[in-house]
Parts: sequence; C-alpha cells; structure tokens
Amino acid sequence: MNASEENGGKGLQVILDRRSVRDFTTEPVSGETLDRLVRAGMSAPTARNMQPWSFVVVTGRETLDGLAGGLPYGKMLGTSPAAIVVCAVTELANGQSVELAVVDCTCASENILLAAEALGLGAVWVASYPYDDRMAHVRSVLGIPGEVIPLCVIPVGHPATSKPPIDKYKPERIHRERW
Amino acid sequence: MNASEENGGKGLQVILDRRSVRDFTTEPVSGETLDRLVRAGMSAPTARNMQPWSFVVVTGRETLDGLAGGLPYGKMLGTSPAAIVVCAVTELANGQSVELAVVDCTCASENILLAAEALGLGAVWVASYPYDDRMAHVRSVLGIPGEVIPLCVIPVGHPATSKPPIDKYKPERIHRERW
Repeated sequence: MNASEENGGKGLQVILDRRSVRDFTTEPVSGETLDRLVRAGMSAPTARNMQPWSFVVVTGRETLDGLAGGLPYGKMLGTSPAAIVVCAVTELANGQSVELAVVDCTCASENILLAAEALGLGAVWVASYPYDDRMAHVRSVLGIPGEVIPLCVIPVGHPATSKPPIDKYKPERIHRERW
Repeated sequence: MNASEENGGKGLQVILDRRSVRDFTTEPVSGETLDRLVRAGMSAPTARNMQPWSFVVVTGRETLDGLAGGLPYGKMLGTSPAAIVVCAVTELANGQSVELAVVDCTCASENILLAAEALGLGAVWVASYPYDDRMAHVRSVLGIPGEVIPLCVIPVGHPATSKPPIDKYKPERIHRERW
C-alpha cells in the first residue's frame, strides 16, 4: 500500500461509517450546513454532465409533518429539523431518459447522505420513487410539477444516539474476471 | 459552524474533489485496493437492507479490451489496469423491483467512485444500463446471467494527470420550502 492509499483510509472512513439515522435531537441544522449538503449533491457525476436535478430544502415544521403524513417509512420527518427532497428532472437528462435522471439523482442523494455523515449529522433515504402514491403525495405537499420525479426525501438532523458502523462486506458477492 | 462541522470539511473534500478520470498510467492496482473499493460499494444503503448486488472485478487485459469493444464511451478500458462491473440482482431487491435494484446499485457505484478518489486513484462511470445493446455486450463478455443488470463498468487506475475540482453548484436549482 503506497502513501496516497494509506492516506485515503481517512477519506474512506466516512463511506464505511455511514449509517441510516432516524432519531434526531431537537437542535436545528443551519441554512449554511444544509447548503453544504446540497453542494455535495451537485458534485455527483451525471450522464453527459447534464445535472438533471433540483432540490427542495424544507425546514418548516408544518411542511415536514405534511411530508411525514404520506410516507409510510417517513415518520421520522415528524421530528427531524430539516429535510432535502431530491428531484429528478427528466427533461434535463441525457436523452430525456427517466432511467438516467434517476441514476444521476441517486448519485447526488448518496453524496448528501455521505456529506451528512462527514459533518457529524444524521440522515436517511426515505423512498418516494418508484411508488406512484408516495410521489403524488410529495408533489402535492411541495408543489412539485407532475413531470418531475421526487426521488427521495432525506431527513437531516443531529443524531440522538451514536450508531457503530456495520460491516456489510460479503466476499461471495465478488466475482473474479468472470461472473 | 461547530467543531464537528468544521472537521467534516475534510470528509466532504473527497466528494467535492472527485472528477471523472479517463487517462491512466500503466501502474497496476493491487487486488487489496480493488477489494477496498468493492467494500466501499457494499457499504451503501439499500431498500430494506437487501443489498441486491454483485461485483465483477476484472484485471485481465483481454477481458478489459473485450469490454471496451462494445461500449461506445468505454474506450479507456483499453488502457485502464482494472475495472469493477456493478451488477443489479433484481431478484434480491426489495419487492424484486428493478427500479430499487438499480437505485441501490447506483449508490454502491457512487461509493466506489468516491473511494477511488479517496485512495488517490482515478475512475469513471461507463454506462451499460439502460442500453439493451451495451448490457448484452457486458453480459456476453463476462458471462453474466440474462436476468442480472450490468449497471455500469468502472475503469480504475492511477490518474495520468491531475484534474482540479469543478464547482457545479447552481443556486437556481435549490427551492426553499416549496418548489
């Protein structure tokens, strides 16, 4: 292992340590910090660099509660101080492809989850896509146009508890040279 | 900005600095390092923690050239010393959903791209999905079953040149409280 690889261990740690966090303290998250998370999202790679996304940053209690009301696995939005909704804008994607818009915005979402971990915050992917009813709910609460795909809602806050990393490494899922 | 957020700046830097790298030196990448990249991929979140993925790690020159032959934007596989092929296994996904398998494996792929950056390596997302002809080609070269989706091929190597970060932040893509 050479020097840069050794150093890289630190950068890797955020990826290996990230956990889904669903319990938050009441401490708010600053607008500046939420902006850093979105900036991390916008640093993701996209097909032909089209960046087919928009983000809705939500901190209003009533709106967060509204989102929670129609997302069966999003009850924690009722206690998180903020959320970032990642939206796939198909008309901006390479070839106006729904599939590529979703892939590109998924990379952005993973970046946001990792950035939250890096900043000592907690976050979790609450799925909206691919469920028609959940997407309709998120669109309705936030006034998102029908042609835009609300991919996921990411509650963000300060973790109420510390969660140790989980090792999900499974060597049997690695093929060498061929399947 | 509190102390943990200040510290987080370092963890964030990998996300902000990552670039798509397509030019590699001839230096090989060790099996241990490739394993660290796959481990980072397996640390991604997945719907209901189903981890619907497998990875094919390729270092054989002939196989890399074979992959390059059928991927219009994958010519650099002809010079990269290695590649990781991320495969979405739909039957393992939550609800056996193609959409969720693709989203989960996209998070794993983004983790691998970021881990490469963290280790001082270069990598790039070469799309296979959602193109039927490219997926058929990758399946054929690697012997991947027809029901498995080869999402992307990620060439990995030591960067031939240093690329400065690009700022892709666009404030007009951020909505506050509502779309």
